Amino acid sequence: MSMNTFGHLFRVTTWGESHGPALGATVDGCPPNVPVDEAFLQQFLDKRRPGQNKNMTQRQEPDAVRILSGVFEGKTTGTSVQLMIENTDQRSKDYGDIANTFRPGHADITYHQKYGNRDYRGGGRSSARETAARVAAGGLARAALNHLAPDLKIKGYMTAMGAMQLDRSKLDLNAIDHNDFWLPDATAVQEWEDYLQKIRKDHNSVGATIEVIAQNVPAGIGAPVYAKLDTDLAAAMMSINAVKGVEIGEGMAASSLTGTDNADEIFMGENGPEYSSNHAGGILGGISTGQDLVVRFAVKPTSSILTPRQSIRKDGTAIEVVTKGRHDPCVGVRAVPVGEAMMACVVLDHILLDRGQTGGIRAPLG
Amino acid sequence: MSMNTFGHLFRVTTWGESHGPALGATVDGCPPNVPVDEAFLQQFLDKRRPGQNKNMTQRQEPDAVRILSGVFEGKTTGTSVQLMIENTDQRSKDYGDIANTFRPGHADITYHQKYGNRDYRGGGRSSARETAARVAAGGLARAALNHLAPDLKIKGYMTAMGAMQLDRSKLDLNAIDHNDFWLPDATAVQEWEDYLQKIRKDHNSVGATIEVIAQNVPAGIGAPVYAKLDTDLAAAMMSINAVKGVEIGEGMAASSLTGTDNADEIFMGENGPEYSSNHAGGILGGISTGQDLVVRFAVKPTSSILTPRQSIRKDGTAIEVVTKGRHDPCVGVRAVPVGEAMMACVVLDHILLDRGQTGGIRAPLG
Amino acid sequence: MSMNTFGHLFRVTTWGESHGPALGATVDGCPPNVPVDEAFLQQFLDKRRPGQNKNMTQRQEPDAVRILSGVFEGKTTGTSVQLMIENTDQRSKDYGDIANTFRPGHADITYHQKYGNRDYRGGGRSSARETAARVAAGGLARAALNHLAPDLKIKGYMTAMGAMQLDRSKLDLNAIDHNDFWLPDATAVQEWEDYLQKIRKDHNSVGATIEVIAQNVPAGIGAPVYAKLDTDLAAAMMSINAVKGVEIGEGMAASSLTGTDNADEIFMGENGPEYSSNHAGGILGGISTGQDLVVRFAVKPTSSILTPRQSIRKDGTAIEVVTKGRHDPCVGVRAVPVGEAMMACVVLDHILLDRGQTGGIRAPLG
Amino acid sequence: MSMNTFGHLFRVTTWGESHGPALGATVDGCPPNVPVDEAFLQQFLDKRRPGQNKNMTQRQEPDAVRILSGVFEGKTTGTSVQLMIENTDQRSKDYGDIANTFRPGHADITYHQKYGNRDYRGGGRSSARETAARVAAGGLARAALNHLAPDLKIKGYMTAMGAMQLDRSKLDLNAIDHNDFWLPDATAVQEWEDYLQKIRKDHNSVGATIEVIAQNVPAGIGAPVYAKLDTDLAAAMMSINAVKGVEIGEGMAASSLTGTDNADEIFMGENGPEYSSNHAGGILGGISTGQDLVVRFAVKPTSSILTPRQSIRKDGTAIEVVTKGRHDPCVGVRAVPVGEAMMACVVLDHILLDRGQTGGIRAPLG
Repeated sequence: MSMNTFGHLFRVTTWGESHGPALGATVDGCPPNVPVDEAFLQQFLDKRRPGQNKNMTQRQEPDAVRILSGVFEGKTTGTSVQLMIENTDQRSKDYGDIANTFRPGHADITYHQKYGNRDYRGGGRSSARETAARVAAGGLARAALNHLAPDLKIKGYMTAMGAMQLDRSKLDLNAIDHNDFWLPDATAVQEWEDYLQKIRKDHNSVGATIEVIAQNVPAGIGAPVYAKLDTDLAAAMMSINAVKGVEIGEGMAASSLTGTDNADEIFMGENGPEYSSNHAGGILGGISTGQDLVVRFAVKPTSSILTPRQSIRKDGTAIEVVTKGRHDPCVGVRAVPVGEAMMACVVLDHILLDRGQTGGIRAPLG
Repeated sequence: MSMNTFGHLFRVTTWGESHGPALGATVDGCPPNVPVDEAFLQQFLDKRRPGQNKNMTQRQEPDAVRILSGVFEGKTTGTSVQLMIENTDQRSKDYGDIANTFRPGHADITYHQKYGNRDYRGGGRSSARETAARVAAGGLARAALNHLAPDLKIKGYMTAMGAMQLDRSKLDLNAIDHNDFWLPDATAVQEWEDYLQKIRKDHNSVGATIEVIAQNVPAGIGAPVYAKLDTDLAAAMMSINAVKGVEIGEGMAASSLTGTDNADEIFMGENGPEYSSNHAGGILGGISTGQDLVVRFAVKPTSSILTPRQSIRKDGTAIEVVTKGRHDPCVGVRAVPVGEAMMACVVLDHILLDRGQTGGIRAPLG
Repeated sequence: MSMNTFGHLFRVTTWGESHGPALGATVDGCPPNVPVDEAFLQQFLDKRRPGQNKNMTQRQEPDAVRILSGVFEGKTTGTSVQLMIENTDQRSKDYGDIANTFRPGHADITYHQKYGNRDYRGGGRSSARETAARVAAGGLARAALNHLAPDLKIKGYMTAMGAMQLDRSKLDLNAIDHNDFWLPDATAVQEWEDYLQKIRKDHNSVGATIEVIAQNVPAGIGAPVYAKLDTDLAAAMMSINAVKGVEIGEGMAASSLTGTDNADEIFMGENGPEYSSNHAGGILGGISTGQDLVVRFAVKPTSSILTPRQSIRKDGTAIEVVTKGRHDPCVGVRAVPVGEAMMACVVLDHILLDRGQTGGIRAPLG
Repeated sequence: MSMNTFGHLFRVTTWGESHGPALGATVDGCPPNVPVDEAFLQQFLDKRRPGQNKNMTQRQEPDAVRILSGVFEGKTTGTSVQLMIENTDQRSKDYGDIANTFRPGHADITYHQKYGNRDYRGGGRSSARETAARVAAGGLARAALNHLAPDLKIKGYMTAMGAMQLDRSKLDLNAIDHNDFWLPDATAVQEWEDYLQKIRKDHNSVGATIEVIAQNVPAGIGAPVYAKLDTDLAAAMMSINAVKGVEIGEGMAASSLTGTDNADEIFMGENGPEYSSNHAGGILGGISTGQDLVVRFAVKPTSSILTPRQSIRKDGTAIEVVTKGRHDPCVGVRAVPVGEAMMACVVLDHILLDRGQTGGIRAPLG
């Protein structure tokens, strides 16, 4: 990963600030002849878009994505694809008073120390708005995956938000698209909503955990040492704003398991190997097993809150910061489509990388 | 990261299999004029070496590292440094019976599916033995850090092992080097040892959590989007064998915090900004704050256990696998120096990367 | 270099087709605090722009560059800079008849074979129009160089065009900006112009040689093996459309020299080493000497000519191709500012790379 | 390319100094299941080896290559391959007197200025001995090409040496392996040898031009903008020690051609497109046509000569340098197998890269 780029062969470089004229993603290495258009990409941006419901910031942006290059007559050409989203709602005066203040929990202070020159409007490059570009690139990755691995499905959902925890016995992936929290349990939605509204009214915010799975991933993508599938998934998720932890399969809980508990036993099924369980999260030795890929990540609570916090100005003087403006009480909600987008990019990248090295040929088994 | 390489400017490519003639690390991009010799590197390899105590595999290897290039008259020349460790104890007959068997929890099956051609001796390239090369490279990174950032300290220790948990109220970093578990609490060592011996006698194994911190890291290293310091740390730790989760600062627990709890308030100190707490783990917006970097990772229990597990052979027939041989009941123990090595490599790489882009100049503050 | 990206730390990814809505360059890794605006970049695009004089294609495009990101309050922020040029004159009907025809000497046939899906409008991605994005990126590199190495000067000029050859005894760099050929000899301009007009009237085209020099380059940038300064310059120039050869210093003529002739003898001057000559073109062992960098490249004659050539259609049937449309009789003329842009990008990249590894510190000498 | 690495997917990192204990190549990304052993690689090293005949340095080294990793039971495993060559003839006292002297035409002075710390024994990292590692890596690339593209042939030969020029009307590729100059004209060998012996006796040296071709390269490898096949070939050849110019097809002579002369007309043959000529050198728009790839490069005369040249010491004092030791009067002779090795690496890399992006599928034509 160079500074604004991720991926080996499917390489995504994002650009743009929260309140500049536009932001976007430059995608290099997309396979040719992938059917894609702006409407296909837009559906993913619409999922991430602010202002959709009362659990999100009320900033109103159409977030309309334009394809400026690399697609001709409805198909990718194999050259770089430019995906641009113009910023239309740039009410920058909301943010003007923070030009000289460092908001606790934000990149303001580190960015200033490093670069000495900060676009303070809405967080500039450090704004979560950057993730719109990832979602656009992820949409392109999905179009390519639909072409190369039509059965592959990617689904993201919340599993925790502050004191709320998903009851896994009620997990229903069909519920995800029918509530504001991407919650796979329709029966819990009201409780989560009440909880979050209380957090908001308390001038507070809260963290969340998101799980993203990929189903029907071909076995054999990834590599044993550093281009591990789990390594790249961890990097992809940790690169999302506000993420503080990433887990594959059992994740941190693997620490408390014994070897007998943790073993995913192997049996020969009709269509290849089958496993008694999926503690591994679909990855062994950095390479996909063909089971579901299971990744989770935790998002910290929004740092922009109305409750005053102590901080300093550029000149070192103390200030009590109250972050006004339009902020999500739980940024985790909007991180769901972003996590899905990163999963799509990583899986596609590894399918291409595997095809490059091995031709995509799988050794016979059984 | 390409397949066997990590790092942007300080680039480490590891090579070698568990039972081949040698393994090592090819390190490109090391700064010139760094004082280093084999003895300096050896101390880190000695920490990781198997067979040191009864909590480790009894495989006996001196793991002597040789510097084959890039160092002249006791200093790095600025060209690629080759660090080689010859394999001397290769009792490969221990492993011969597993050539056609896939051990549950191992990369055997995925490696076979992907490459169709596996070095089955002791795990081949997927062996934890690969981490010896990382430790050698990490030693070189430390030598460079001693040169460039003399106050910087890196310390790794265990915080959990199965049912055992570090009591943080007793945390004492001085204790780390005086017990077999790199445990920062001398009073708990006997209990951890008894616990692990019981696990071993039960023909079982257990997972662990390791925390690695870096103290006196300069503020301003890292970048806001994909070459984030936390992204690269997550990738580095997740790339270590058997790691299933990575956390920065609060990690997965950030999910359950509120914004008021999580805020690290900022105050002006005599030597720059100071913070009321370090929930962030020393990183804001991908860039170091100057506080301690705090990274944790969970290692799954050793998959090689004497308790039988169901699996299949290459031909698809069922087999009950009992993994004999010399295996650690908790690979987490030896992951401590590996985690330290990865921390050293990532921090050095980001110091160089920052120096390349900004000249290493920090904006005035206060 | 990945497919549409070049550079190590100053990384330029270009995107866009000849007749799409826009094209541009996404530049990652620019140092922060570099003063730059659109007007500064525009001057370089204006040098390259078509339609300026009768020796160029009459396609009329303002080629106005917009900065969409990475610059705030007149300075770079250190994040990715998006430089976009909208295509305004897209008379695509000129090109419609070639959708199924492969023009000799063009990428039409290879692009079709590889990707099976070609934007045939004006060459699509293979159009020399892509070089406008390089010139924009090169402008940004120059802004950064002005900031980091204020004395450094980059100058490109033609040294040959078909039968015309620069008389080096008359070389006058001050003449370059005062004629349509960037010719460093005012006395030869009329003859070159008459020659080229005859070529055009003959429905023909002609090749050219361009030399680009950089003066006051710091000693010590580059590296000994693969990130050699000459390697990266060769790659940069060879990546320009229609270039078939690249030379450093003596170039291909080094083949016929003896060691006594070729030696650049070294003397100690007041401000460091001085050399009796510059056969080396300012580079020894991949590293700059501090002498002028001297690079030359040859551009083949424009393949699009009005004289009929034999070719085939997609279906394999024969066709006689006459390429109508607006084409330069010598694309080498417009390659001059492109070569300058590539030089700027490479030199800046190596200054950053050197600073990353060595801190930019030079060893004392004398 | 990072500092000591080249290639996109087939990545070669070389390491080692002329007079250190060993040198070698770490090769990442090799396809699995490629049959290869040390004897196969050794044949290429034997071609490059010094001391074979009186036209080469009399340094005697077996240059025996060892495979330390990545090959198991006679086939590549898909993981990193370590190729090591131990240095056995290190008579370093020959070079001891130059520790403080900068030899004209050598990297001594630039290396010192940049790194401030130089392995002066035999040129250290800047020695042409580094190319032995390239030849080993190129041997591995050839093994993989034999596996993936069995009809592909790579041939290198000299076309000029000082005043000697190949008469192309007598070109006979079968002659190459039967003379010391890799000269494709048996009738000229004696004259070339006499010429070179005279150069040697005059205490002088001379440059050379080498041409490397690849036959039966699949159409469609390469890319249109920066990962052009010609760009990567130019970089590969320019990275070889002492190379000052690189040409594809017509090369620098393209400058003097007209469009009608330069057009390679296209006809439909029985097995695909055929061309009337190959001015393009097998590449159009950065992508292979299926014609022979034709690359040429010029090597400067050996800088180490017995004729005295003026130079300076580290302390700035003047010195007359006479480079004793064992030096080739024309390093171009040994550059032939090195050029072949680089061709093999680049072509393989592009086959893998193409397979990654497109699946290696070619669009129907005709």
